[in-house]
Amino acid sequence: MSDVASHLENDRFLRALLKQPVDTTPVWIMRQAGRYLPEYKATRKQAGSFMDLCRNADLASEVTLQPLERFDLDAAILFSDILTVPDAMGLGLYFSEGEGPVFERPVRNMAAIKALGVPDPEGELQYVMNAVRTIRSDLNGRVPLIGFTGSPWTLATYMVEGRSTKDFGKVKGLMYEDPAAMHLLLDKLADSVTLYLNAQIAAGAQTVMIFDTWGGTLTPQTYRDFSLNYMQKIVDGLVRENDGRKVPVILFTKGGAQWLETMADTGCDGLGLDWTINIAEARDRVGDRVALQGNMDPCVLYAEPEAIRANVKRIIEDFGLPTGHVFNLGHGIHQYINPDNVKVLVDAVHEFGSALRA
Amino acid sequence: MSDVASHLENDRFLRALLKQPVDTTPVWIMRQAGRYLPEYKATRKQAGSFMDLCRNADLASEVTLQPLERFDLDAAILFSDILTVPDAMGLGLYFSEGEGPVFERPVRNMAAIKALGVPDPEGELQYVMNAVRTIRSDLNGRVPLIGFTGSPWTLATYMVEGRSTKDFGKVKGLMYEDPAAMHLLLDKLADSVTLYLNAQIAAGAQTVMIFDTWGGTLTPQTYRDFSLNYMQKIVDGLVRENDGRKVPVILFTKGGAQWLETMADTGCDGLGLDWTINIAEARDRVGDRVALQGNMDPCVLYAEPEAIRANVKRIIEDFGLPTGHVFNLGHGIHQYINPDNVKVLVDAVHEFGSALRA
Repeated sequence: MSDVASHLENDRFLRALLKQPVDTTPVWIMRQAGRYLPEYKATRKQAGSFMDLCRNADLASEVTLQPLERFDLDAAILFSDILTVPDAMGLGLYFSEGEGPVFERPVRNMAAIKALGVPDPEGELQYVMNAVRTIRSDLNGRVPLIGFTGSPWTLATYMVEGRSTKDFGKVKGLMYEDPAAMHLLLDKLADSVTLYLNAQIAAGAQTVMIFDTWGGTLTPQTYRDFSLNYMQKIVDGLVRENDGRKVPVILFTKGGAQWLETMADTGCDGLGLDWTINIAEARDRVGDRVALQGNMDPCVLYAEPEAIRANVKRIIEDFGLPTGHVFNLGHGIHQYINPDNVKVLVDAVHEFGSALRA
Repeated sequence: MSDVASHLENDRFLRALLKQPVDTTPVWIMRQAGRYLPEYKATRKQAGSFMDLCRNADLASEVTLQPLERFDLDAAILFSDILTVPDAMGLGLYFSEGEGPVFERPVRNMAAIKALGVPDPEGELQYVMNAVRTIRSDLNGRVPLIGFTGSPWTLATYMVEGRSTKDFGKVKGLMYEDPAAMHLLLDKLADSVTLYLNAQIAAGAQTVMIFDTWGGTLTPQTYRDFSLNYMQKIVDGLVRENDGRKVPVILFTKGGAQWLETMADTGCDGLGLDWTINIAEARDRVGDRVALQGNMDPCVLYAEPEAIRANVKRIIEDFGLPTGHVFNLGHGIHQYINPDNVKVLVDAVHEFGSALRA
């Protein structure tokens, strides 16, 4: 990137992740470009399917920037899907109305896993890199851009189940029955994801986040062996620099609050927290090894402004330190949230974040 | 109950919960009377709807005893549903194909909550007590009978949402927006459930278990205030004796492994564990205050016998003490499990449980 492109008007988010001084607590919101915004729904309609929107760099950039127009957010996140990598491996992703993501060709045994290749990020996945480049250019240094991926375990759950599942019977059945097949699948995914994230960084992503949405469904031992192990491999393989700045890596295992210490041991820079743990306890447990991102229950946004402000204040005060905290929800924002309440949240984070440092 | 009826041929389960000596580790399986058994499906078909089966004491007893014919289980559990109490409060429970439980008349504001009454366990809920009496008589002292309920918070989630939910937006929205209304609802539910469980004990239940299926979706503070607080009220209000024996109380919050210490502080006798915590760590954290029940991932039952046996052995050895452990899955058994694998599990528990004590 050129020097102009690499200038950042607001680098609070990057500084907090690296535990450098900040004037207030930075904030962004998982799924901030999404269905709770009428302007998102309009662009989505114009694009066609959800994947059509992901594949159109200009429209993907448009929806990525929409929440920044409304709210004083400190980061943008690439508009894409966690399942782009398995789709590029040939599984045939589509989105079924009311059911979510579905793969036409799920992978359920060693033979099918052996046949999978590692996708070229500037080949089948070039549309993602084009979106990163376009967004980075459109952002023009306003705030940092976050790239992301699903974790190998999370991708594997969809690849084996073929669709969303409540009980994870097929993927865990394969894991318990044929651990060697599962390890081969996860290893290929770790290789694919490492290339994918490094390509996002080369295209301009200034932070990367690994979403381990389903790691919390595992036992402590299978979490370590089948999820964390492969996130470690990715962290080890990332080129963590861009424009002469460090590119922080954030790991987020939903339902993984019990395993924060081992996650911090990977050498990542930040950990995402859901809302099932108090952020002061999390901070005490991980010490100063990593920054923390989170951790408000997304359902707080259904309440009135005063309740939202009180919850924001409590989390910021519970964290208590002048840096190392990025405010966020503990999971993606729900589609029925009133955008006015998001403004209340974002402004309250900056207000109470400044007060904490005063 | 008469002296004859109160004799127990196998009281391993009760003894382990009270940390008295046992010859081997007792075992039962959540949802052991269920759709994975062809004989259950036959009786269910004969009964009509799921609630018709719950309301027919003879058929409810028949399905309760079915798994005892196949497997060497150490306890029976009342065949019923966790939503009987809100149904008796007038919400109109039915089961929709493929969607699960639905309430015709959900409760979403203070006025609707104020209008709710506390059901008479020997009135609208007498069909449950009749089932307890029939099962207890049919068991004839073979193994103890477990009665159960949903926790107030878990019942409230269905009562407010009206059906199963992934994001708990309506119930948590009410909790954050109007905590007084939520507390009134939970208080009425705690009173109702206390009467309901005491009536089950009077009718012959020898242990009672409170299923807090959705407590794990809360934050640490809202778990304490809106779920645990009302389970505490129930524990305090139970008449914990039957036939001159203590009636143990088991609390089970799925996804609640982080909060075991505060659960143990309620004065319950046992804690159910899901599979997201190692049972040795759980035992170290709760000390000798309570017995532990669990904690195998239900998906292990999709694997071959050797993998099932290895997982059983590890859990029994991780627990390591000669009493205070009841083996179980960490959640209900899935409908597609091969019953032969359940036999492998049950026999392995007794084999490795004996070996531990040898």
